[in-house]
Amino acid sequence: MINYNNLSQRLIDAEYAVRGKIVTRAQELEKQGKKITYCNIGNPHTFAQKPMSYVREVLSLIEYPNLLTQDLGSLFHSDSIDHAKYILKQMPEGVGAYSASAGVEFVRKAVAEFIAKRDNIPVNHDRIILTEGASRAAQLVIAAIIKNQNDGILLPIPQYPMYSASLTLAGGLSIGYYLDEENHWQLNEDILRESYSLARLNKLNPVAITVINPGNPTGAVLSYENIKMIINFARKHNLSILADEVYQENIYSKNSKFYSFAKVMHDMQVDDVSLFSFHSMSKGFFGECGHRSGYLEVRNVPDDVFAQLVKFQSINLCANVLGQMATYMMVTPPQEGDASYGLYIQERTAILDDLREKSIIIGNELNNIDGISVNMPEGAMYAFVKIALPANKVNTSLGSKADVKYCMELLEKTGLCVVPGSGFGQLPNTLHFRTTFLPPREQIIEMVKKLSAFHQEYIAAL
Amino acid sequence: MINYNNLSQRLIDAEYAVRGKIVTRAQELEKQGKKITYCNIGNPHTFAQKPMSYVREVLSLIEYPNLLTQDLGSLFHSDSIDHAKYILKQMPEGVGAYSASAGVEFVRKAVAEFIAKRDNIPVNHDRIILTEGASRAAQLVIAAIIKNQNDGILLPIPQYPMYSASLTLAGGLSIGYYLDEENHWQLNEDILRESYSLARLNKLNPVAITVINPGNPTGAVLSYENIKMIINFARKHNLSILADEVYQENIYSKNSKFYSFAKVMHDMQVDDVSLFSFHSMSKGFFGECGHRSGYLEVRNVPDDVFAQLVKFQSINLCANVLGQMATYMMVTPPQEGDASYGLYIQERTAILDDLREKSIIIGNELNNIDGISVNMPEGAMYAFVKIALPANKVNTSLGSKADVKYCMELLEKTGLCVVPGSGFGQLPNTLHFRTTFLPPREQIIEMVKKLSAFHQEYIAAL
Repeated sequence: MINYNNLSQRLIDAEYAVRGKIVTRAQELEKQGKKITYCNIGNPHTFAQKPMSYVREVLSLIEYPNLLTQDLGSLFHSDSIDHAKYILKQMPEGVGAYSASAGVEFVRKAVAEFIAKRDNIPVNHDRIILTEGASRAAQLVIAAIIKNQNDGILLPIPQYPMYSASLTLAGGLSIGYYLDEENHWQLNEDILRESYSLARLNKLNPVAITVINPGNPTGAVLSYENIKMIINFARKHNLSILADEVYQENIYSKNSKFYSFAKVMHDMQVDDVSLFSFHSMSKGFFGECGHRSGYLEVRNVPDDVFAQLVKFQSINLCANVLGQMATYMMVTPPQEGDASYGLYIQERTAILDDLREKSIIIGNELNNIDGISVNMPEGAMYAFVKIALPANKVNTSLGSKADVKYCMELLEKTGLCVVPGSGFGQLPNTLHFRTTFLPPREQIIEMVKKLSAFHQEYIAAL
Repeated sequence: MINYNNLSQRLIDAEYAVRGKIVTRAQELEKQGKKITYCNIGNPHTFAQKPMSYVREVLSLIEYPNLLTQDLGSLFHSDSIDHAKYILKQMPEGVGAYSASAGVEFVRKAVAEFIAKRDNIPVNHDRIILTEGASRAAQLVIAAIIKNQNDGILLPIPQYPMYSASLTLAGGLSIGYYLDEENHWQLNEDILRESYSLARLNKLNPVAITVINPGNPTGAVLSYENIKMIINFARKHNLSILADEVYQENIYSKNSKFYSFAKVMHDMQVDDVSLFSFHSMSKGFFGECGHRSGYLEVRNVPDDVFAQLVKFQSINLCANVLGQMATYMMVTPPQEGDASYGLYIQERTAILDDLREKSIIIGNELNNIDGISVNMPEGAMYAFVKIALPANKVNTSLGSKADVKYCMELLEKTGLCVVPGSGFGQLPNTLHFRTTFLPPREQIIEMVKKLSAFHQEYIAAL
């Protein structure tokens, strides 16, 4: 019989804190009847956020095409019916057949047009692969570009732990670079250079740099100049860029704007840095996590490299086809004049306004708590919150797990489920946690109150 | 800029013939206007096979729950509406939220009940993981149990190349064992022992054996006695069993019956052989390949091993949730008395009868061609066809690619797209190809005629 010692060490070593021990404990407490507020994961539909109607109307119709031959009365908007008919004309076999490995061609073309329009740049649809969420896209690239155990990828600290976990599974090494908390979590060239040099000194071979913009867990939005600096840095050191851009629609601060790496690279006329960019329907105002819908856009890679990525995808046949159609809906939203345009604008505005309002509440209110501070979230759906504990009473050094203890007690006392900073990485002698601001407004306000009371009690009891 | 030499050798080495060069050429020819009959892949909905209505009715409703608040007239069967309401009561967040990593709990419970009823054995729902098709389940297990580069898995020859490709990606070794073509492609204990001993002699460490039943590409169904032999063999040599049972509903021969490894193992009272069994909605009479719906059932593994498999799944969050619901529909079909029961039986019978008829046509007609022979397909949706070419004119040795040449010319001359035997593996000095029998009956008959004419011409031209 198989036992733990027979398992791959890479698997055992891989850690994914977002679904780790604290969440397991939260689920136990919930089963015992305790009310839990899950702020551990960016999963919008588990809260009040509803799916965008136009997406679901079309997916419902293509799932059961027989409907299109019936009198549907006023059950669906007319443009949804047209959209569904168009899709099934392009793809008469429907959503039950495997697609081409890279995804359905007309969807890949629509994605290319979406990017071209967003950035005003040329896009080749034959450098796009439709994937099961952005996670699968990232895993594909990471597993493809790690050649041996000295190869590493520069990952931000803090980072989204799917990256380190996937890198561990691929047998590569994480080369951490700190984000600059004092400077709105931007990347800092000196810090990047230091991390890179240290890695080389240790005989590691950095092959790529991962950047998450807008940031997870930081909620920061990178400036145009910062992205330029990163591209120049990557170029100088012959690094590929993995750009996680899944929160591109989640921009809240008036001073922030999303710039894609593709756009900045095009402006700079850089064509010798390989770029792998990830987008998904799980975030933005869609929140369609469950559909595992996403894409990978690749730039500046030769044909034979792209062919290997497609082959990799082919071994799992293809991304789920309904998810591919969801991606199609994401990139072809209703236009002015369409029957569902009004509802689309109304739903989108409500979701984004609500998130913006909550980003401000959480930023302001947390900063009012003594011993707690946070950079105002400018984007994404997270705040990475700094907690000050008296150093003479608490060991706050790296690996002390003081943040885990804090978050576990927060959960037990208040029912708030957040993820300790150590799950993402943090500077030595600092402690953090990541929280989403997805729960409804009233819950966010209550949550901050509970946290404030808890924090003072926690300090007093030390 | 990244180049081919920067890529993982494992990725470069992985081969998945089902979507290889011949298919690429077929797509080129199709674009040029040539009519292609795609018999390369088990993708039922690309042919006449329609989805099962009850599945699509329910999926359509849960995709757009707003429908459930409207007057639906006679658009849906009443039990489909009840089913959809039940699902959304269990899962109010709907299909747009991430589920638990192992899958939605009520679905896992329904899968456990389905297996328990099928096999009359006890099943623990907490040993089930809902996956993106059976492929993802197999990849999960393979990557988990390969510890280092000497570890290998016994794979059938011929095999479904997803196994060898996934094993190559995981850094493990294929240890081939020949299936016994002279004996209906059953497993042969002497051959197994020989393969195992040779592997040990070469300092390899066999950790598991993969068995595909009903067989892909062979179309064979294993006997109860054969499965018993395999379990005893695995037990003796401390091998885990990977049982690919995705074709369990596709049984055509009156003399064949599907027995699951779980059932036989339970009958034998064996509780010390780890079993990983895969099922999917892509085959059977559903053919829902595009939904990437499937499950992994695990037996005789300790909690800490199962926990690592769930963690592995968590790194990609979860299987697509609509696919999980499709699996739910697979394991809870309409019952007598339900409004859609009549239609369900009618659709299921039509699909399976049609496949049965075509399995007989293809088996009989191919055996009538001089120089071509095949074991009558007893199950699955494939025939693995033996072609005899004069050895004095053609190099038929292993690695000669004589089968690739044959299949490529078959494609060019007739538009038939089949997969060369070398993509699956075959005995030295034998040549084969795999064909599905999914095209409509008339196309199958025409296909056999074309093949017959082609084969005689090919031989004559040598």
